[in-house]
This record gives sequence, structure tokens and C-alpha cells, in this order.
Amino acid sequence: MAFELTEEFITNIKECINSVGKTSLILDLIGDLAEQDISALLYELDTEEAVELLNILTTEKKAHVISELDTDIRLKILKYYSPENIADLVEYIDSDDAVDIINELSIKTGEEIIAFIKNPVTADHIIDLLHYDEDCAGGLMAKELIKANLNWTIDRCIEEIRAQSKNVDKIFSIYVVDDNIRLLGILSLKKLLLADENSIVGDIYEPNIRSIESYKNGTEVAELMQKYDLETIPVVNVQGKLLGRITIDDVLDLITEQADLERQMMSGISNDAEEDDSVWLLSKSRLPWLIVGMLGGILGAQFIGLFENVITQVTAMAFFIPLITATGGNVGIQSSSMIVQSLARDSSDIGLRLDRFGKGFVVSVINGLAISTLVFLFNIVLKQEIHLSITVSIALFCVVLVSSFMGTITPLILYRFGVNPALASGPFITTANDLLGLGIYFSVAHLLFSF
Amino acid sequence: MAFELTEEFITNIKECINSVGKTSLILDLIGDLAEQDISALLYELDTEEAVELLNILTTEKKAHVISELDTDIRLKILKYYSPENIADLVEYIDSDDAVDIINELSIKTGEEIIAFIKNPVTADHIIDLLHYDEDCAGGLMAKELIKANLNWTIDRCIEEIRAQSKNVDKIFSIYVVDDNIRLLGILSLKKLLLADENSIVGDIYEPNIRSIESYKNGTEVAELMQKYDLETIPVVNVQGKLLGRITIDDVLDLITEQADLERQMMSGISNDAEEDDSVWLLSKSRLPWLIVGMLGGILGAQFIGLFENVITQVTAMAFFIPLITATGGNVGIQSSSMIVQSLARDSSDIGLRLDRFGKGFVVSVINGLAISTLVFLFNIVLKQEIHLSITVSIALFCVVLVSSFMGTITPLILYRFGVNPALASGPFITTANDLLGLGIYFSVAHLLFSF
Repeated sequence: MAFELTEEFITNIKECINSVGKTSLILDLIGDLAEQDISALLYELDTEEAVELLNILTTEKKAHVISELDTDIRLKILKYYSPENIADLVEYIDSDDAVDIINELSIKTGEEIIAFIKNPVTADHIIDLLHYDEDCAGGLMAKELIKANLNWTIDRCIEEIRAQSKNVDKIFSIYVVDDNIRLLGILSLKKLLLADENSIVGDIYEPNIRSIESYKNGTEVAELMQKYDLETIPVVNVQGKLLGRITIDDVLDLITEQADLERQMMSGISNDAEEDDSVWLLSKSRLPWLIVGMLGGILGAQFIGLFENVITQVTAMAFFIPLITATGGNVGIQSSSMIVQSLARDSSDIGLRLDRFGKGFVVSVINGLAISTLVFLFNIVLKQEIHLSITVSIALFCVVLVSSFMGTITPLILYRFGVNPALASGPFITTANDLLGLGIYFSVAHLLFSF
Repeated sequence: MAFELTEEFITNIKECINSVGKTSLILDLIGDLAEQDISALLYELDTEEAVELLNILTTEKKAHVISELDTDIRLKILKYYSPENIADLVEYIDSDDAVDIINELSIKTGEEIIAFIKNPVTADHIIDLLHYDEDCAGGLMAKELIKANLNWTIDRCIEEIRAQSKNVDKIFSIYVVDDNIRLLGILSLKKLLLADENSIVGDIYEPNIRSIESYKNGTEVAELMQKYDLETIPVVNVQGKLLGRITIDDVLDLITEQADLERQMMSGISNDAEEDDSVWLLSKSRLPWLIVGMLGGILGAQFIGLFENVITQVTAMAFFIPLITATGGNVGIQSSSMIVQSLARDSSDIGLRLDRFGKGFVVSVINGLAISTLVFLFNIVLKQEIHLSITVSIALFCVVLVSSFMGTITPLILYRFGVNPALASGPFITTANDLLGLGIYFSVAHLLFSF
């Protein structure tokens, strides 16, 4: 049942846009499409074509399509619209989406747009939401919700829904408040539908309700909604006053964005790069970490250079350099990713606890012993020189221990300093561990056998 | 407003469980907690303690708490319950969760449980759902939903909700069907609430509705629900008959699980390891990829050994081994992670397209040139021998190109063969690229300067 965007369809649309008088044909083609499908189509068009296509749509549909776009393409398209035009669009979309759009534009343009908004309620909502940081509960919420006073009758409640529901796309439930708009509980539509006509809201509402304070961050919102299977959560201020609601679709987008960000950090890609970005953007997003890795490599070369005479005497020392560095990298990434996972599941679990390190230590002793014994056996079978074989295995064991410690502590420290801990599972940890590993390898060789 | 599980609280509960006659005290402590909070508490108790605590709860609450647990701890606890006990529990939870529990047990136990279920509707639902593969839409859906015939009056519809709603926790909307239970559309509770009493369902329902066939896989369900911001989606068979519905909370759990799996694959951890697993389990989940990396390292050592005389002559060749292998690893992970991201966003985008490779090629030419030029300049400044400097930079350029190609093609091939492409962003690609990089490095040295 999902619409599929084919090459044929795109070519067809492009042709229609670029000929004169095909407006009705375009409407036939895209009239039944969901706003998400039309916005996906816009990515395949030039900006001028996209604007022409948008201008065929009704203002409401246009507003929803534009609201679905990513920032970069939306900015290009909105250049063709005056603040007054944008103000017209903004009246048709939820306040949280409207604020996202306004936040992408300059402060001046944003103020002009708000000045042009005709509905004072919409303008108030937007001005209110602009105060909140994008990443906190207040920044995620929409102001559109239906609230009912504790003392209202069922009939009044239904009348109010009739009046308010024009502004609220999806109604899951009605928030019950007192005279000071303090959140008291929730009334499900189901209960309302089945209620006795003579009862009042206070008789049938559910007082046990989870809400979240506006200053809490997005991760906390996501954890709470996921844990308790909530489709929507009301946002309150510190006095418990009802401010807005967050719906699960926004949280789902947040979770996906965070997973994308984590993946990019783990693989050394900066910015929000996507495969269909320009070649320059892609190069730029990848180069910084390649340069970090390169500097690490140059440092490593300098470091090994200090042991030139060792390699001249025991050439075979050089053979095991990749084994040492690769093992350090692998162990470091494994350890840091366990921490990143724990933090992703419960962001409050940031303790530099003894049991956490103790367990990591035992695991690395076991794995270190296993790996270094195996390597030792291989070296014996492959008739490698005995002193070198001992050096390699002891160094390997130490590398596993040290890399595991580094991999555990780095994400925790980054997190404490407000940096995304996933950064510790990428080129960062491999580069650091390469150098550490080389240091351990040559030190062990020097200490044991004065290589 | 979220409950926090403190050490104090856990100690307190443990003490109560282990003394006689403190049942009412325990109920005071946990009576108001959500099932998710009680299930979180169970993780902190011994199995016997957990079972004792569960037995204090009502059957309904007990059923919901057990349904929230992870497989491993649930299996331990259910050992204390007879099939008849489990059948009692199963009647209180949604059919999809009931099937998840039964699927974890042996086939024999499962059949016994079903035989003990008293409500024939529940038993039918479960037997029906057992047919579906866990990972497809049919395996994700619950049978509990409210349906209304096209020709029903509003009153009949409300009566039916009253009758059916005992079995359905959360009602978002009513599915409208014809006499053959074929899905025709949807009726929101809002519309029903605001409807004229004399109208029939057919007058007010919304015929444009997204549904998904039962055989579609979980990723497709997640993509569809996320794209169109759906809180719930009806599942139909190929004839369009309404079978069940999937709610967003199940999809959210699926997305989180997939993100965890991807993270583990990217970091070389097999099984579903968590920080609080036992030391043995953690070792076992990490060792396989460490051994793969180790075998790569041993192979690398053998390979470099072939060029022993080169290193004897030009010791400095060894200095740059970490630079070569690290760059290959970094580029490979960057490229594969771009593909994994594209696949995560649109699982149908698996083309071995020329433009995909062409773009990757241009990006790697740019980055390869940048990196190798920088390294060359460094080597000049650091007074490295000129022939070696040329060798390193040319090899580095080739390594970037080859690693980028390998990183692009590997996840696509894995995906084609039904393997999770994230596997290509982990130790797999770094190990392969280490060997490839060494091969390129020594070949370039040999070809250019007969090193």
C-alpha cells in the first residue's frame, strides 16, 4: 500500500512541470499522495521545479509537505517565499514543527514571520516555544492539545473537543486540569465515549499519569516513553502547569537521529553526511578523522623509528606490528561499545564503579590469555624465534588489558564532559590504542630481552 | 515523576521477602508501581525472591510484570509455574506478548499451556499467531482490536466498543470492515464522538488507510510507520482480510534492538551481550572477533615475513606499517557505514549502482590525494628518505581507493545474501583491509624501487 517513487514517475513529473499548462495533470499524478511522499519527490527535483510543484498545491498541503523536508532542502525552497507567505504556511502545521522551521531561518526573518501570523493563538504558541532549547522536552513539545477542567460535564467536554479539535490532528486523550491549568490526570476518549451523560470529568478521569518537566532532555523523554509504552506524554513546568505534549513520532525521529549520529561517530564521519550529499560535503565529513588517523600513523612511525636498531637486529619484530595494533583497536572498540550501549539504555548509568572496571578486567584477563596463548602456539608451529614469540604474547596480553581499560574509561569521561560517548568507539580509540600498543610492544621487548 | 530504583529500596524489599508475614508491607511498597518498574526490580532479586514477590501480586499484575521481562530471566521464573498457572497468566496479556512467552518455552509446554487456556477466543488468537515468523508483520501484530461493520449505526458501534474494550487496552481507532472482514478503512474515536447519532459507520469513516501484509518483514513495518507517523497499523492477508494490528511501542522496541545489534556488529561483539551479563558470557561474546583479528595479524606477520630482506635493507619500511593499516581500516569503516546508513533508511536501496561507486571513487580520490600529500610533506619535513616517502604516499593513495571500494561493496553483498550489513563495518573490514593494505604497500615498494 506504500507509494513507490519510480524513475519513470519522476521523469513524468519533471516533464509536466517544464511544459506549460499541465497543472491539472500534475495534480492528477500527485493529488492522492501523502505529504511524506510528495516531500520525497521534491528531493529528486531542482529547487525551481520543487517550488513550481509546491505552488500547485493548496496552502495546507504545501505547509505539510514543507514541514516534512530536511533542513538543507527546506532552506533552499523557502528562499522563494516571503515572510508573509511563510506565515500563511505556518498556520497550518503543529506549533513544534513551525518552531523548527523558524529556528532554521535568521532571527530577523523569524520575527517578520511571527509578525505576519494572523491567528494570535498560533503566534503565542510559537513565541512560547521559541524559548526552549531544541533538545529538551520543551523544545520537543507541541502546544496543540485538548484540555478539560475537572468540573466540566461530559457534554461540555465533547463540545470543547468539537471546538478545539480543528487545531489538533491526532487526539489520543484529554488532559484534565484544575482552574490554574495544573495537570491532574488524563481522560481517554474511550472512557468519554462510554461515560454516563450525567457524570462530570472529575468522576471518570485517571489521576495516575506520567508527565515530564520541560527542562528534561530528549534522551530522558525517549527513555520514559519507551519504558512505559506511551504514545504521548504531557509536558509540565516545575509548578506542574500543563505546557504541551510530546508525541511518539517526534521521539521516534529523535531515536533514529541519535542512532545515525552514533553510527557516524563510530565510523569517523563528522556532520550529518548522507550518501546522496555532494562529493565535497562527503569528503569534508570524512577527512578530519582520516587526518587524525594519519597523524597517529606519523607519530607511530616516529615512535618505531626510535627502535630502529631493534628492528635492524631482529627484523621479525616488524612482522607483528599489525597484530599488536589491530588487537588493541578491536579490544578498545568492544569495551567502549559496551559502555555506549549501557548509556544508551539508561543515561543515568555513568558510574566509574569498581564492579564495572573489575568485571572488564576479568573479561580482558580471560580474553588476553586466550589470544596470547593461541598466538604463542601459532608461533611455535610456524617456527618463530622463541624470545620473539614470548615478547609478542606478553605484549599482546598487556595490550588487551590496557586497551580494555582505555575503552571503558574514555566514553565515561567523554559523557561526563557532555561529549557523545560514541566518539570513543571510533577512530579516536583505535588511533590512541595503536600508539599505546606500539609502546607496550617495544617496551616489553626492551625490558625482557633488551631487544 | 518516574520511579527510581535505589539500592535502599532493593535492600528493603529483599529483607521483607526473607522475613515471615511482611506481605502487606511489600504490597505497600510496590502496590503503586507500574509493571515496568516491578519487572526492573525483579532483575535485582534472586529467582526465588522474584517468584515470592510475584506471588503476592494479583494474577493480572503478575501477568503484566512477567510479560515485561527479558527472555533469560523470564525462563528462570517460569520454571516455578505449571502450564496451568501460565495459562491463567496468558489470559491477561495481549496475544502478541502471550505468543512471545509461549515461543520461548518448549513446544510441549506451549501446547499444554494452550490446552489450559479457558477463554476460547484467547486460545484461538494465540494458535493463529503461532503460525507467523517472529520477524514479520504477522509475528509483530496483536489480535486485539476493535472492528466495526460498514453498515452499523453509531449506537451499535459504541455498544460494540463497550463489549470489546475489556480486551483491548489502548483504543486509538476502530477498523471498518465489510461482511467478509475485509479492511475498508478506519474510524477515529474523535469522529465517533462528534458524530450525528443517526449516521452509520459507512458515512463517517476514512477510507484512505495504510495497512501492511502479514508476510512483510519488521524493518518494512518500522519504515512505513515511521515515515507516515503512524501509532498503529492494521495487518491484512493477501486478500485484504483484517488479521490484527501492530502498535508503535513494539516497533520502537524493534528499532532499539536493531540499533543494539548494529552497534555490536560494528564493534565485534557477537550474541546480545550486555554489561551486566556474566564474565563468561561477555568473554564468549567478544572472543570470536578477537580471534578473527588475531588470525589476520598472524597472516599479516607471515606476509611481511616474505619481505624480510626488504626490511633488512630499508628498516624504515617498517615504521609506516601502522599508518598504512590504520588508514585502510578507517576508510573501510567510513565507506561501509555510509552504505549501512542508506540501507537503514531505505531497505530497498541495495543497488550496485554505477553512480554509488562513481561518487565513492571521486570522494576517495580527493581524500586519498589529501592524505598522501600531507604525509609526503610530513616526511620531507621530518627528513625521511625520498624513495621511501614516495612509496608511502603512493601506497597510501592506493589503500584509500581500494579500502573505499571494499567498504562499499562488502555491506551490499552481505545484504544480498541476507546477512546484516553492519557486519561489514566492524573487525571484518579492518582485518581484511589490514592485509590488503600490507599487500599494496610492499607491492608498491617492490614495483617502484625494487625494495
